Parts: sequence; structure tokens; C-alpha cells
Amino acid sequence: MKTGEFTYARRVTFAETDLAGVMHFSNYYRLMEETEHAFLRSIGLTVVLEDEGRTISWPRVATSCEYRAPAHFDDELELRLVIAKMGDRSITYEIEFRRGGERIALGRSTAVCCEMADGVFRPTTIPADIRSKLEAGLRGGS
Amino acid sequence: MKTGEFTYARRVTFAETDLAGVMHFSNYYRLMEETEHAFLRSIGLTVVLEDEGRTISWPRVATSCEYRAPAHFDDELELRLVIAKMGDRSITYEIEFRRGGERIALGRSTAVCCEMADGVFRPTTIPADIRSKLEAGLRGGS
Amino acid sequence: MKTGEFTYARRVTFAETDLAGVMHFSNYYRLMEETEHAFLRSIGLTVVLEDEGRTISWPRVATSCEYRAPAHFDDELELRLVIAKMGDRSITYEIEFRRGGERIALGRSTAVCCEMADGVFRPTTIPADIRSKLEAGLRGGS
Amino acid sequence: MKTGEFTYARRVTFAETDLAGVMHFSNYYRLMEETEHAFLRSIGLTVVLEDEGRTISWPRVATSCEYRAPAHFDDELELRLVIAKMGDRSITYEIEFRRGGERIALGRSTAVCCEMADGVFRPTTIPADIRSKLEAGLRGGS
Repeated sequence: MKTGEFTYARRVTFAETDLAGVMHFSNYYRLMEETEHAFLRSIGLTVVLEDEGRTISWPRVATSCEYRAPAHFDDELELRLVIAKMGDRSITYEIEFRRGGERIALGRSTAVCCEMADGVFRPTTIPADIRSKLEAGLRGGS
Repeated sequence: MKTGEFTYARRVTFAETDLAGVMHFSNYYRLMEETEHAFLRSIGLTVVLEDEGRTISWPRVATSCEYRAPAHFDDELELRLVIAKMGDRSITYEIEFRRGGERIALGRSTAVCCEMADGVFRPTTIPADIRSKLEAGLRGGS
Repeated sequence: MKTGEFTYARRVTFAETDLAGVMHFSNYYRLMEETEHAFLRSIGLTVVLEDEGRTISWPRVATSCEYRAPAHFDDELELRLVIAKMGDRSITYEIEFRRGGERIALGRSTAVCCEMADGVFRPTTIPADIRSKLEAGLRGGS
Repeated sequence: MKTGEFTYARRVTFAETDLAGVMHFSNYYRLMEETEHAFLRSIGLTVVLEDEGRTISWPRVATSCEYRAPAHFDDELELRLVIAKMGDRSITYEIEFRRGGERIALGRSTAVCCEMADGVFRPTTIPADIRSKLEAGLRGGS
């Protein structure tokens, strides 16, 4: 595994397939999110957390996925996450879907660091302690 | 239509099918919920509402479904809801799935009227104004 | 409505929300697909069809979505589909999510026309009769 | 663990929650299915298999679930499956949802052994080799 990658293994479930016999294209996004959350958990973070009296969350502003080959029921997928870009207030993950050493899809997801209050999301600079955990998490790999 | 029924029409979507080519069994429960919510909307209620300063919601305590014949992509289903039972604190809906005049499934769902506060659900008597709307809603049919 | 648009109305269901109180980002893709399929149905096509003894289907090769404002339970969304690009073998739809006249998200989806045989998808030129229906469908608007 | 049980561990994902902040009631059914399929895999079976030239599958005829306490994002659930009943042609699984030693839900699912041909499901006696694997699988526990 390359330095700077986080990997997550996941089988395709029956409910994730559709009548074409393959994983429905929308479910790749759910697997991308599961991988992100597993990465956050691995470095002691979570997707909604308290930071110095504020509630920090990460609404997505853009997601995308390219599909090369279909995934089937019970396939064991290996998901590889890297941080493609980290700005002052946003983070872009790139998640590769691999099966048996072959890339079958590539997804990207950009989220903005926000302070949540009264149901409103206000963009904010990524707090230093969170930033350093994110950077250290991937520098070490997993 | 029988008096006392609420009906809701809904096509089966592609994402709701599975590799067996039929609607996945878990999705019947989502259609049951959609029908319940359409019924509540038709009588001026919603699933989480304010009532005299309290937040009233309806967590489910039991659901079930019997499947007679599969549903396919793009099938136009007719869902028929009746209140099978209304106690002091709970309500049981029965929802029939029909296609072309034939019953293909029958679901039931029991929810308890709760006051929500600080993330805790506390069972409470169904408020009189809500009860009368529920009863009137079905007595008139739709 | 602009010439060349197909519109589809859809409420956000309870099951499509997540703990942040908004529609989960993956469900935008399901609504995009529902809109595409409603468009195909409106012009007499469907997503898997027989054409001169061949089975024609449209696996997706790329999808993306940009999110501007969250969608909530029971929101009535208006989805507007246009064909952004039609090549010899592929089609790209652009789907705008609107609520009360405001754009809240913009999705894109590219699918390749394929001949399906023995579980294998083989890219093929879009058959002339299908192409003319697609073009006419949007030229007329809806 | 009791003899005759199969256990499966699973975290609740973000996409499985709803705006009430808890796992949506329909997703319990997906977890039940995942547990069943993990059990089948553990004894060398799968949900659609070839048996002496026939395709054997297990459409569900009835499912149900009772909910005692909500499940939250990232909760680690322990699912315990037992065969509650095995007839000539059908099998009923009971699946308990536990969290930290506490039962939070109890589901049941009845499936009928069918021979699939030309898109039609025809009930058939559970083949002897499959029956003996099912029985042995649970007798030994996991």
C-alpha cells in the first residue's frame, strides 16, 4: 500500500444490486461515505463533533464517480482513500474502488468544514487540531 | 374504493429492484411509510409536529409484511391504507399493495405516540385534536 | 419552461433524509435516475429494451452532482432534465434540482448505449429510431 | 454464545439514519438479510445457487420486526441468527439485534425454497444436501 492511503474492505450486499445484476450506481456513493467515516474513526475523529464549544460538520458540495467495470453481489471490494486536496475550509477525498487488484471505479467527494448552529451551516476554517489529525492520519497510511 | 381507505399510487423505481429482477423486500416498508405520510399530509398532519408546546412523533414498535407476488420495475402499484387499530397511545396501519386489481402484498405497521424531548421518546396519549383528524380522515375515504 | 426541457416533480421522503435532517447526498442520484426514466417513458422508451433482436441498455460511465442548498423532508422538488450532449454511442443528461424557483443542486450523468448479451455489455452506436425519439422528446419540451 | 447461533457484527452507517437521528426502521431488514447471507456464506451456500441442474433461490413470503430501542450512527450491533423453523419447503430465521448486551430489536424472515426457471419461482422441497448444511451450520454455532 502506498504511504498516504487508507484502505477499507467491503462486500457488495444483495440489497445494493439492481435488476441489471450489478451494484446500483448510487450505492458507490454510500461506500465512499463509509470509507471516509472509517478513515475519520481511525484517526479519532467523527463526522459531527464538538470543537471548543462549536459543532463542526462537513456538508458535501460536490461528488462524482467514474465507473469502469460493474461490481456484483458478494464481490469483495477494496476501497482506497486519499486526500486529494485540503484547502483552508474544504477537503477533497479521492476513493478508488478495487477488486482483485483491478480498479473498477474512482470517486471524489468535496466537503466544506462548517459550524452548525440552529440548523444553519456556516463555512469555517478547518480547526488546527482537526487539520493536523487529518494530515497525520494519511501520512502514516493504515 | 371502500369507505375508510386512503389510496396512494406509486411506480417501482429501478433503484428499488435487486438482482432477482424484483422489488427488494425491504423497499415495501419504504412504500408503506410513504403511504402513511401521504395520508397524514391529506388530513393536515405530519410525522413530527408541535402540539401545545410539545413535539409529538411516532416511533414504530412493530412492522411486518406478507409477500404474495413480486413487483417489477415500473409497475404501477396502488397502496391502500386503513387504520386497523387505534389505542390510547398507539396506531396500527394496514397497507395493501395492489397491482392491476390483484393484491400482491400486505403490510402492517404499529407506531406509538411519543413526546420527544432532549432526544428521548416518552409514550403519551394521542392528543384529542390529532385523534379526531385521524378518525375523520379515514371515515371520509379519499 | 425552456424548450428542450423535461420536468419531473418529486417530494423528498422521510427515508431519504439522514441524521443531519437533510436529504442524504447519495439520494440525489436516485432522483436523477427517476427523472431520466420518467423522460424515457414520456417518449415511449425504457431503460432496457429490445431493438431488432438485440437487448439495448445504458450503463452509466460517469455521474456527478453539485450541492448548493440542502433539501428537507417533504420538500417538493422540481427536476429539470436536458440532454447536455449526445455522441454516437453515449448520452449525457444534466438534471437541475429546483425548489420554489431556486436551484439547489445540479447533477450530470453519462451513459453508454450497449448491447447486452450473456451478461456482457458491448458499446454500440445509438440505434437511429432511439436517437430520433430522444431528440424529438426534448425538442418538444414537456 | 448459545449453541445453534450465528453472529454477525455490523456498524450503523450514516446513510442508514433518518432525520429523527436513528437508524430508519426499513434498514433493520437489510441488516437481517446481510446476516442471513453471511450465515449462508459461512456454510458454503449462497442465496442463488445451482443444484443438480436447477437454479435454487429463496424468495421471502413474510418478514417482521419488533423495535425496542433505537440504533444510532456508528453503533456497533451484534446480530444473532437462529433457524426458528425449517419445514419441507420453507425456512424461518429469527435475528436478534443486540447492542452492548441489550436486545434492541427482534426480526423474523420466512423464505420458501424455489426452483427458478424463465423468471418464474416454483416452490420445491429443500434439497437434502442444502438442508444438511443448514442444519449442521447452526448445530455447530459460529
